[in-house]
Amino acid sequence: MRKVDPEKHAARRRQIVAAAVLCFARKGFHRTSTAEICAEAGMSPGNLFHYFASKQAIIAAIVDQEGLETAAYFEEARQAEDLFGQVLGFMDLVAELAADPTYARLALDISAEAMRDEEVAARVARNDAALRGHLREILAAAAERGQIDGSLDLDGAATWIAALVDGIFARVAVDPAFRPTGEKPMLRLLLSRFLRSGGPG
Amino acid sequence: MRKVDPEKHAARRRQIVAAAVLCFARKGFHRTSTAEICAEAGMSPGNLFHYFASKQAIIAAIVDQEGLETAAYFEEARQAEDLFGQVLGFMDLVAELAADPTYARLALDISAEAMRDEEVAARVARNDAALRGHLREILAAAAERGQIDGSLDLDGAATWIAALVDGIFARVAVDPAFRPTGEKPMLRLLLSRFLRSGGPG
Repeated sequence: MRKVDPEKHAARRRQIVAAAVLCFARKGFHRTSTAEICAEAGMSPGNLFHYFASKQAIIAAIVDQEGLETAAYFEEARQAEDLFGQVLGFMDLVAELAADPTYARLALDISAEAMRDEEVAARVARNDAALRGHLREILAAAAERGQIDGSLDLDGAATWIAALVDGIFARVAVDPAFRPTGEKPMLRLLLSRFLRSGGPG
Repeated sequence: MRKVDPEKHAARRRQIVAAAVLCFARKGFHRTSTAEICAEAGMSPGNLFHYFASKQAIIAAIVDQEGLETAAYFEEARQAEDLFGQVLGFMDLVAELAADPTYARLALDISAEAMRDEEVAARVARNDAALRGHLREILAAAAERGQIDGSLDLDGAATWIAALVDGIFARVAVDPAFRPTGEKPMLRLLLSRFLRSGGPG
């Protein structure tokens, strides 16, 4: 048996994931074959299975990668002075990702796959719980600094911000005229009013 | 050829749709066979195709029915004095539907199917455009009566309310702890602040 170099192995996995993302964006997850992913990655089909057991395993890796990127984003966001601004900045970033057809297609494919595949569903749910945790934490710190309404139920607020993230991608899927980046000002207005209005509305 | 009684034909179609909804809720759209729908409706499989050309045609009928129900809801809502209250009431209703596992499953299946089937997608998009039209209209009348902020961009507001509707169903799919009806107060707070706050936030 060949010895496996862990760094080379990880680099090859990243290369396969990148190739898979391109293929999924073109044809969707279900209509993409592992042979097409191998061709895109420039490797022989028999070789793929040293890195991923199945197409599902590739999508699982994509979901996990996304979780790591979200965690890294909030790790940095926490260092800022204006934490409310970081929440707005996060939603701007979500709007930009939703405006990228490759990313939007992939996000919607992953949601659909989560309805069919329990392992993908578990990973998506784990990322979602982590996202709500990040949001709750940054909102709590923002409330402590007086940047948002301190009387707000923060679990509820984090949940509804997550619902807005879902909603942006759903809009892209259903409304061909929806332009996520063009909607940034309205989204900022909504979040500002929701998180900062003093009274009970 | 038999003569078709249009009323009997329509009644039979409704019966098949009701049976299909039950089957889809149990097993999902894709894993339900037309034979199972016929068994649930108490009819012979060969008979189904007098009423629907395919399983897709049944789901199309479900989507169309939903569009009619939404139109009827807003037709009545428009008669009220407190139109802002009607918008809140509509979102309460959405939360109740999302809390019904049969309905939520069906709604998510329809969204997934719209990604695979252009005809379903066209119908879903038509319903969505109609919903945003209804929302825009009721918001405009509410603004005229001073019930909501008159300076708000109403197309944008309708779009984001639609995004919240999508978001509620997405939350049900991804977060097992999400209770749509328990979230009603927070949703009302969000909408009140978004639609009624005076200043620019």
